Amino acid sequence: MDQVLRYIDRNKDRFLQELKRLIAIPSVSTNPEYKQDIKRCAQWIADHLSLIGMEKTKIYPTKGNPIIYSDWLQASGKPTILFYGHYDVQPAEPLNRWTSPPFQATVRGQNLFGRGATDDKGQIFIHFKCIEAYLKTMGKLPINLKILLEGEEEIGGKNLSKFIEQQKKLLKADLVLISDTAFFAKGVPSICYGLRGNVFMRVELRGPNRDLHSGSFGGSIHNPIQALAAMIAQLHDADGHVAIAGFYDDVRQLTRLERDTYRKLPWNDKRYARDLGVKQLYGERGFTTLERLWTRPTLECNGIWGGHTGEEARGLLPQKASANISMRLVPDQNPKKIAKLFETHLRKLVPKTVSVAIRCLTMAEPTITAIDSPGVRVAVVALKMAFGKDPLFQRDGGSIPIVNRFKQILRLDSVLLGFGLPDANEHAPNEFINLGNFFRGIRTVAYFYDELPKYLKNRGKNDL
Amino acid sequence: MDQVLRYIDRNKDRFLQELKRLIAIPSVSTNPEYKQDIKRCAQWIADHLSLIGMEKTKIYPTKGNPIIYSDWLQASGKPTILFYGHYDVQPAEPLNRWTSPPFQATVRGQNLFGRGATDDKGQIFIHFKCIEAYLKTMGKLPINLKILLEGEEEIGGKNLSKFIEQQKKLLKADLVLISDTAFFAKGVPSICYGLRGNVFMRVELRGPNRDLHSGSFGGSIHNPIQALAAMIAQLHDADGHVAIAGFYDDVRQLTRLERDTYRKLPWNDKRYARDLGVKQLYGERGFTTLERLWTRPTLECNGIWGGHTGEEARGLLPQKASANISMRLVPDQNPKKIAKLFETHLRKLVPKTVSVAIRCLTMAEPTITAIDSPGVRVAVVALKMAFGKDPLFQRDGGSIPIVNRFKQILRLDSVLLGFGLPDANEHAPNEFINLGNFFRGIRTVAYFYDELPKYLKNRGKNDL
Repeated sequence: MDQVLRYIDRNKDRFLQELKRLIAIPSVSTNPEYKQDIKRCAQWIADHLSLIGMEKTKIYPTKGNPIIYSDWLQASGKPTILFYGHYDVQPAEPLNRWTSPPFQATVRGQNLFGRGATDDKGQIFIHFKCIEAYLKTMGKLPINLKILLEGEEEIGGKNLSKFIEQQKKLLKADLVLISDTAFFAKGVPSICYGLRGNVFMRVELRGPNRDLHSGSFGGSIHNPIQALAAMIAQLHDADGHVAIAGFYDDVRQLTRLERDTYRKLPWNDKRYARDLGVKQLYGERGFTTLERLWTRPTLECNGIWGGHTGEEARGLLPQKASANISMRLVPDQNPKKIAKLFETHLRKLVPKTVSVAIRCLTMAEPTITAIDSPGVRVAVVALKMAFGKDPLFQRDGGSIPIVNRFKQILRLDSVLLGFGLPDANEHAPNEFINLGNFFRGIRTVAYFYDELPKYLKNRGKNDL
Repeated sequence: MDQVLRYIDRNKDRFLQELKRLIAIPSVSTNPEYKQDIKRCAQWIADHLSLIGMEKTKIYPTKGNPIIYSDWLQASGKPTILFYGHYDVQPAEPLNRWTSPPFQATVRGQNLFGRGATDDKGQIFIHFKCIEAYLKTMGKLPINLKILLEGEEEIGGKNLSKFIEQQKKLLKADLVLISDTAFFAKGVPSICYGLRGNVFMRVELRGPNRDLHSGSFGGSIHNPIQALAAMIAQLHDADGHVAIAGFYDDVRQLTRLERDTYRKLPWNDKRYARDLGVKQLYGERGFTTLERLWTRPTLECNGIWGGHTGEEARGLLPQKASANISMRLVPDQNPKKIAKLFETHLRKLVPKTVSVAIRCLTMAEPTITAIDSPGVRVAVVALKMAFGKDPLFQRDGGSIPIVNRFKQILRLDSVLLGFGLPDANEHAPNEFINLGNFFRGIRTVAYFYDELPKYLKNRGKNDL
């Protein structure tokens, strides 16, 4: 183990240079213009996996973006980890709000800034470098390892689910390991045991059959922007509750233990508001911020557009107005049911002067992992060894839809061993990964590999 | 006169070819990318004015787009007309909704389709061809003529006002003639005697100091799109009235005569709704459609934008959301006062969770012309001679801010002798000019030139 850790320490600079090269490939999945970069990124990673010593690596083309599979299976009799990650990234726009170029990763202070630095290139690279450290020093891993990487995570692509269905045998393992979540705070190692699900909807409101001059027609025709605004305004009540009938019916109530636990966490509303630059927080009356984020479903308008959005005055009464609206779900809400409730509710709000088109873009179920499963137990040990303190258990407001697929299709629990930070700007300008978390993350994974077989030997492998 | 009319008839095809060339220059003022085309368009028109026989033509550069001045002043003792028009056009976007390319003007049926065909290139060309017909057949005009053309009408530019202030002597005339309005309906020649004013505002609502992940932060931070939607929803009450305190205070009430006149006009709400493709009209309770359009102030959201507007699902809680909001004003509302009322009202609606920036982009005063002025009387005669029936008097919901400048600075009344149609798609895809209106429009202007001196001689020039 010492050899592995020394290897990591000796090669820090090179590891960072390599990560910068991975970030430099703009594998943006939300925009078809980057198709070639997506392919190039998959090839770069496959080559890199061969380079660090993985036995078998294959790129599987799909109807969308390629899937990368790789394995090292020489640890006979030892458990098998299925590591999942994604190599696609969010778009970098608006570019003018990045301090350094998004695809030229740059170190400032203790952070490496670049698109994908945390979500998820930096985090999959933590695993790559741990594997390399083992194979280049010991010539072997303490566990069997299968790696599964997709390029459609940021667009909720369906191709990975199909692949898992088709490749159940190839993907057979004892547990799933994922690094796509964040610590509770800097210096506070954490394990995520619950994720919100989601439903993404698109709403288009149509008014007149063409764009009209707002002088010549204004006052006689309902403006679809105004109609849409009025509808959106009716999706929350004055207390911040989502106003869709039946929306909260299946929400699992917090246990007293959970409530008490969350209220003891080191949290400061004022600091949170100050960090985000808002004068006042917002949310459902009757819940704390952490409860709102982790345990309550929400509805957000992710985007709105319609009419003339340019700098100059232009008298337009537009033909249509649109919005991207998503809901975050908690156990035991069902995304399909929520999508229907949303549509039913919205149709009731549409005035007779306009018409509506509603479409569901993607959805994911909420998830909670048992915190006493062996994978989570070993993660606790590994984090403590690497960071020198007990990790805390938290939930996350985001969604990792694939966690449910692993459970449903492969019957596998996922361990969410993420090394991000809550202010790491995933999905926004100036995304970064903290270098301390990056390097200690490599150590954490090394300890995890080392401890997992020991723990299982003591408990008997059937407990897994 | 016969010679003039025969010349017009003999040269119809060539006139259209020339107009197509004028439309082919994309003189879009709302987008700085077209700066060179704006200049090219001004030069093309100046050359054309020399070609048709105007005595003096000069392009005046400004801080913005050039102003064209041209005159023919050989009709000693006769009245002087100041003709005003604009050569800039609205943007053509969205391009995919044009049946034929916006800058390749195309005849289909009885219409010529192209950006600017009605607003205002086609209409200024009506005057050019009338001038040409006189000068090429008679060698002179029956009146003195000054032409003033600007390239900033569609952006509410300030440079023309400055020019008029500076060039009072150059622009001295007896009346202003403008062709930038529309007939009440196809086959119904009309004179516009009232225009709405306007105030264009931009509102930007700012939430958190950066774009956030809507999963990780949603539910704890007020989404500026939702806050903006709620504010916009509060700008009208349930009866369609603008809900800004004091907004209607200075609105001049309709006279009984006006109300009766409007109610006798050939108007059909059902047909209007069907033409525009809406199931139901919208507007202020207690007023007919024509009253809403011509005599009532309105508030329209011309554009809205914020967050992720792409095709794919993207969990964004955006930093800000914006809207372009304009109000159309009627006598005796004051745009400055209304802009203040708007801002005061809006600031009251802003929740503590977000902050607002409000900016006024441009404004114009409402206007009404005396329908018994000599210019209007002669226009009635000219329209009747060209179209074979009495024109009706109407108002228009749009704004021509320069009309007020002519009145305030030069003390001149404007005659609004427009040849557009209400469904001509100004400011929208598939803008067109009706060919019947175009060619009869040339005749109308010819009669106007011919009749104006006769009318004034009979009445005495001081009546003007």
